[in-house]
Amino acid sequence: MSQPPAVVDVRALTFDVFGTVVDWRSSIIREGRSLGAAKGLQADWEAFADDWRGLYQPQMEKVRTGKLGWTKLDDLHRMSLDILLERHGIRGLSEAEIDHFNRAWHRLDPWPDVVAGLVRLKRRYPLATLSNGNVSLMVHLARYAGLPWDAILGAEPTQHYKPQPGAYLGTADYLSLPPSQCMLVAAHPSDLEAASSVGYRTALVPRPDEHGPGSDPPPSGEGFDLVAKDFGDLADQLGC
Amino acid sequence: MSQPPAVVDVRALTFDVFGTVVDWRSSIIREGRSLGAAKGLQADWEAFADDWRGLYQPQMEKVRTGKLGWTKLDDLHRMSLDILLERHGIRGLSEAEIDHFNRAWHRLDPWPDVVAGLVRLKRRYPLATLSNGNVSLMVHLARYAGLPWDAILGAEPTQHYKPQPGAYLGTADYLSLPPSQCMLVAAHPSDLEAASSVGYRTALVPRPDEHGPGSDPPPSGEGFDLVAKDFGDLADQLGC
Repeated sequence: MSQPPAVVDVRALTFDVFGTVVDWRSSIIREGRSLGAAKGLQADWEAFADDWRGLYQPQMEKVRTGKLGWTKLDDLHRMSLDILLERHGIRGLSEAEIDHFNRAWHRLDPWPDVVAGLVRLKRRYPLATLSNGNVSLMVHLARYAGLPWDAILGAEPTQHYKPQPGAYLGTADYLSLPPSQCMLVAAHPSDLEAASSVGYRTALVPRPDEHGPGSDPPPSGEGFDLVAKDFGDLADQLGC
Repeated sequence: MSQPPAVVDVRALTFDVFGTVVDWRSSIIREGRSLGAAKGLQADWEAFADDWRGLYQPQMEKVRTGKLGWTKLDDLHRMSLDILLERHGIRGLSEAEIDHFNRAWHRLDPWPDVVAGLVRLKRRYPLATLSNGNVSLMVHLARYAGLPWDAILGAEPTQHYKPQPGAYLGTADYLSLPPSQCMLVAAHPSDLEAASSVGYRTALVPRPDEHGPGSDPPPSGEGFDLVAKDFGDLADQLGC
């Protein structure tokens, strides 16, 4: 299949991960329920998952604005978790149990189309993460979910949390490519818009179930180089 | 198979690449001969390969000492190549041909035991490069040679060329591990000694043919946590 003109120069694909590649919400709910069952805890794990993700941007914003020095996402997740355990009245967990729950973000299930799609895409393109997750989190997640990345890039190796331009530009620099030869694949228009503003090509893959089944109305595909319904469709459109 | 006591806490394996994982010398000679045949050039490609590698440490030393700002190994290789094309009297190459030859370092063959050994080791351990090669070089090399890395770390993401301590310490930090839970696998005692001095565990895998068949007398295994004859033997010893 021939490629759209805008993407013929693309030499590497980079990926948002949380929401685009993996279904964080149902995975965190599953981990919460498992912990609750093991420890006899009552909690609204759906609300807990949403609250945990809700603190994601505010915690990173402390780093972006310099209120907090560089801090790995694992550690930001832990700061949020400590707040939420208190807020949800969850008590009696050991340090090892809290640490294990914090690493629930290392055990997120991929959307069903992801692994087969990445295997196809990898035949033609180097595949790199461009996530706000730290390197060891991404390594563990890739091993858990079977994600065949060629490189773990993004926030930690560039010391910039998306949507700061340095996260995208630094990732392109590690790939030794101009931004115009890099494509970001993401479910979130704001991420794609930030990438596009520094010269990336963009592929929108909506994930309407990210915040729960059917929760998210499909975003407009306006302004992106490609819109694909899943990673298999993306592989089709890229001729992989 | 039970593990030696020194390695039971190891949580990730890191690898020197040039010489340890790939046979740079015979690959560069092959690439030189191929270029020579295509362009009708006469040259001593064995001497050329040795001279190119011979400029490796002096070029990195300019960066280590601050005479040169951070420079990717690809660019250091190119600086050396320009010197050596002149010195060996090789003329008439286009910029595209010189660039392609410079990327011979992206097309190095692995030693015969490497891929099968890494696949076994990866079942139990995250595998990361700890090479002076830049990220895009390592990505291309992994795709060429089928090396199943979990992460590309080492010099470029830490901005320190080995044997500077920052290369080893920064790699451990990306892995979110103390150095004592990281093992460096390398053919070169000096690399292992530098890693050991900052707390890494060490595995020596001698490559007696690195500088030509039978060129290198086997180094003493004294002072290293493991000594393995190849990556299969390493996997055996680590219980993989």
